Amino acid sequence: MKLLEERIKKDGRILPGNIVKVDSFLNHQLDIKFLEELGREIYEHFKDRKINKILTIEASGIALATLASQNFGGVPVIFAKKEKHKNIGTDLYTAEVKSYTSSKEYRVAVSKKYLDKNDRILIIDDFLAEGQALRGLINIAKQADAEICGLSVAVEKGFQKGGDKLREEGYDLLSLAIIDSINKGEIIFRDAN
Amino acid sequence: MKLLEERIKKDGRILPGNIVKVDSFLNHQLDIKFLEELGREIYEHFKDRKINKILTIEASGIALATLASQNFGGVPVIFAKKEKHKNIGTDLYTAEVKSYTSSKEYRVAVSKKYLDKNDRILIIDDFLAEGQALRGLINIAKQADAEICGLSVAVEKGFQKGGDKLREEGYDLLSLAIIDSINKGEIIFRDAN
Repeated sequence: MKLLEERIKKDGRILPGNIVKVDSFLNHQLDIKFLEELGREIYEHFKDRKINKILTIEASGIALATLASQNFGGVPVIFAKKEKHKNIGTDLYTAEVKSYTSSKEYRVAVSKKYLDKNDRILIIDDFLAEGQALRGLINIAKQADAEICGLSVAVEKGFQKGGDKLREEGYDLLSLAIIDSINKGEIIFRDAN
Repeated sequence: MKLLEERIKKDGRILPGNIVKVDSFLNHQLDIKFLEELGREIYEHFKDRKINKILTIEASGIALATLASQNFGGVPVIFAKKEKHKNIGTDLYTAEVKSYTSSKEYRVAVSKKYLDKNDRILIIDDFLAEGQALRGLINIAKQADAEICGLSVAVEKGFQKGGDKLREEGYDLLSLAIIDSINKGEIIFRDAN
């Protein structure tokens, strides 16, 4: 998606460890009008898949999932919670996730009340690097016997291969921008989009 | 707001410790169409205050803040991050927050890049009990010398007095539903709305 690639070139910053910082519009400060555009693009790709729920993960996936949902007629968004909140209950689907940026492992949980075998879900997150967060959500969706109709992220770091592995496994993964390499501070995008 | 009170009566559940669980529509599964209504109500109250940014806190405030923003012409939403993320940077406003539901203290942070003295902000969260999260955000806004034009939450637990103290201090606090007491499992709302 040209719009996102241009925005990353303009506002993204590269930190040591090839961390791409896009917190001016995607995951700390949120540019709502811009995220609306991303949500529409996600809808265009998945609009025929009879999506009835969107699954995401706190915190940075929530805004994009919310704005995408509006295009799907306002289907419910469920966000997986990190760690065990005192009041999320006990009847949970859980999965372990290893975070690339913090190097920590954490548990994500979704109440069993909100996902089941009748659901046709779209999984959304802001970032995809090694794919651990998406795999945690896939794991949860599978526990619920829900149909995973697709996966979508704003930014995929293609050089970490998490996205390619998911595609090889047959998932319909839409990444709105794929960073294939970072060369002396310049971000190179994959053509596939 | 009648709509929210009715929804809480219908779908809310009360857990030991007078924790009111509204995770079927507000803070785990998100009813997007419904939250849009709440966002419009927030706009109606604050529309003349020249709000140019919305400040919230991860994770449960993000969806409501996002949908409220759309009414204010899509002003940027900044969500304060809990704990120190590896890649949020070092140039931060921070505040300590004690969570009522988890009894833990945690630190919230906002990058200094995204708030300054020219900002007229509205602070939004899902829940208000003792007011610790809102006070953390107020603290951050004050560090930035931003003008705090108002505070809004979906649900205030009036019997915990956090909201009343903020009103006494002069803040324009809009709570879309105020639970004044819980009596044998019945939720009693305050008339003031």
